[in-house]
Amino acid sequence: MKYFSIIMTLAMCLGAGVPTYADGHGSHEGAAPKMVKYTEFNKIGNPADVIYVKEETPQVLKPGEVRVRVLAAPINPSNLLQIAGQYGVDAVLPATPGSEGVGRVIEVTPEAGYLKEGQLVLIVGGGTWRDEVVAPEAGFLPLPELGALSPEVIEQLGMSAVNPITALLMLSSFVDLEEGQWIVQSAANSAVGGYVIQLAKQRGIKTINVVRREGLADELLAKGGDVVLIDGPDLAEKIARAAGKEPVALALDAVGGDTYTRLMNSLGYGGTIVAYGMLSGKPATLNTGMTIFKDIRNRGFWLQKWYENATLEEKQAAFGKIIPLIATGVLKADVDSRFTVDNIKAAVTRAGEGGRNGKVLIVPNVE
Amino acid sequence: MKYFSIIMTLAMCLGAGVPTYADGHGSHEGAAPKMVKYTEFNKIGNPADVIYVKEETPQVLKPGEVRVRVLAAPINPSNLLQIAGQYGVDAVLPATPGSEGVGRVIEVTPEAGYLKEGQLVLIVGGGTWRDEVVAPEAGFLPLPELGALSPEVIEQLGMSAVNPITALLMLSSFVDLEEGQWIVQSAANSAVGGYVIQLAKQRGIKTINVVRREGLADELLAKGGDVVLIDGPDLAEKIARAAGKEPVALALDAVGGDTYTRLMNSLGYGGTIVAYGMLSGKPATLNTGMTIFKDIRNRGFWLQKWYENATLEEKQAAFGKIIPLIATGVLKADVDSRFTVDNIKAAVTRAGEGGRNGKVLIVPNVE
Repeated sequence: MKYFSIIMTLAMCLGAGVPTYADGHGSHEGAAPKMVKYTEFNKIGNPADVIYVKEETPQVLKPGEVRVRVLAAPINPSNLLQIAGQYGVDAVLPATPGSEGVGRVIEVTPEAGYLKEGQLVLIVGGGTWRDEVVAPEAGFLPLPELGALSPEVIEQLGMSAVNPITALLMLSSFVDLEEGQWIVQSAANSAVGGYVIQLAKQRGIKTINVVRREGLADELLAKGGDVVLIDGPDLAEKIARAAGKEPVALALDAVGGDTYTRLMNSLGYGGTIVAYGMLSGKPATLNTGMTIFKDIRNRGFWLQKWYENATLEEKQAAFGKIIPLIATGVLKADVDSRFTVDNIKAAVTRAGEGGRNGKVLIVPNVE
Repeated sequence: MKYFSIIMTLAMCLGAGVPTYADGHGSHEGAAPKMVKYTEFNKIGNPADVIYVKEETPQVLKPGEVRVRVLAAPINPSNLLQIAGQYGVDAVLPATPGSEGVGRVIEVTPEAGYLKEGQLVLIVGGGTWRDEVVAPEAGFLPLPELGALSPEVIEQLGMSAVNPITALLMLSSFVDLEEGQWIVQSAANSAVGGYVIQLAKQRGIKTINVVRREGLADELLAKGGDVVLIDGPDLAEKIARAAGKEPVALALDAVGGDTYTRLMNSLGYGGTIVAYGMLSGKPATLNTGMTIFKDIRNRGFWLQKWYENATLEEKQAAFGKIIPLIATGVLKADVDSRFTVDNIKAAVTRAGEGGRNGKVLIVPNVE
């Protein structure tokens, strides 16, 4: 991703301090080198098979670089897809996965203009599944003064640049939704699904939440969902019944295959279905009569393209909404489990399993 | 269709005379009644099976009504679909099919405000597959003064309200096409396909024209097509090769099924595919990865909804472009064959066959 523009955006919209002074040398320069670990893959394949852990002595900082200790970096579905070669762009191998994360500055160079040791930053330059990230200062986003943050909120901030932004944009880029309108989404128990529920609730938009197994309804209703349905052949009819006489205006799908087709069939006249994931790995069936006679619109959402193409104002607006909501605990994702870099194979295996209850995070070894 | 607005539109944009006088009684009122024939269907089914011919004595005109002798009324695919129960709205049975046509006024009532005997009109109230149409004046659109028209041009005007408008709108409603850009269409040898070629050529838009059989290339190139391809499993690759390094921006599909999928796969980043027919009767396969990573947009076009929803200005603009082009012979469709009302079963059979070379028209018995 082209993260530079994210950084500029966030610095501008969140009011992060950009002091004109540099605060001198990093304090770790005399410390004895301690090995640090990182993950890597050098061929496309099943993530648990192709990913491995490497160790190195801490890199010596070049002028302008900063060392950040990773506090939390999520395993997102797009990361696994890219390792498996099923993503829109291939990684340049060998590669360290991880598209986002939160960390703390532990060393700066005199040439670094505004980051300070001890500061909490979002890691926006990629390659976050590692103990520490060394990169030019521009690879990090200083968070604004958010007060004392609990470890839980810090973790949540490490998941702010991908899933909450995705949810926000899908709710605003395709259909002008009004308070009281119905939307439907598959994979409602995913991280994006949870953010969609919470953001829709804030706007008074009613959500029909489709999942593939029993036992999730209480949790999704507690988050603010209005209806929870189990996927199945009669899903379209169940969705229509749930919405009553009101048309469903927007469907968000991360599954593909039959689920996509059912969501599409449930839409009202002129409705839009947006694909943003392909968890089933299967194509959907498109009855073109639906697009003709019901004016159903099929679209897709890919966050990477948004980062490349959105205007500065659009990015400011998106982050300006998301970060404060996360920092104040209004918006959050469930965490299923935490793994250290050492246990990356177990981590990606867990992240690829059904039946999880939230995100899998890469976290530091307790020292 | 709600034709009233079409009529108002055409009268306004084509400058049809709307005299404030009525020219007296129809001159046929003393004539001996001669039986007139019309077509009808009273159940949904295969058109050749369910359609039949009926005969009646000419209806006596009610005040404000006008009698029009039908000169040419096309069999459009949407007519056959509606008889077969595969259209977006069902007919109220029994029904006389036919959505457009051209005719000549042969009798008026004193209350008719502006139509005159002998005048050439578009029949815009539906039910055109019959010898004569009796309807309130508003069911007809007086054509503007177009000079002496050949029988061929009169026939062409009878096909102006459906296919040319469809072609025009599909080329302008979804993508802002610029001169030199590529589009692709299936069923390129259909009537709509021919209009698309001619209208695209006028705008300098390059067309890749897909057909399902050999032997059509010369004809489509002569109409102004840039490339003609035969459908097949490697269609997407052939389209890409034909367009060279330039992306295909728009695909228009009347076939559905595999053909739709191939057209979709040939589009460049951000391209749009518009379905407007389902000749194959088959659903397409939608790889949602295409909508996500290539931002492919799937839309549909249904002329009936346009007639219901377009603004007066939009309708004026559309007809104002189409009618003069047809009247001057610039825009035309091929005619495969002509049948009288008596031979409606043969007519709809022919219209449902592959391998035609144009429209099937309902025309009068030679007297």
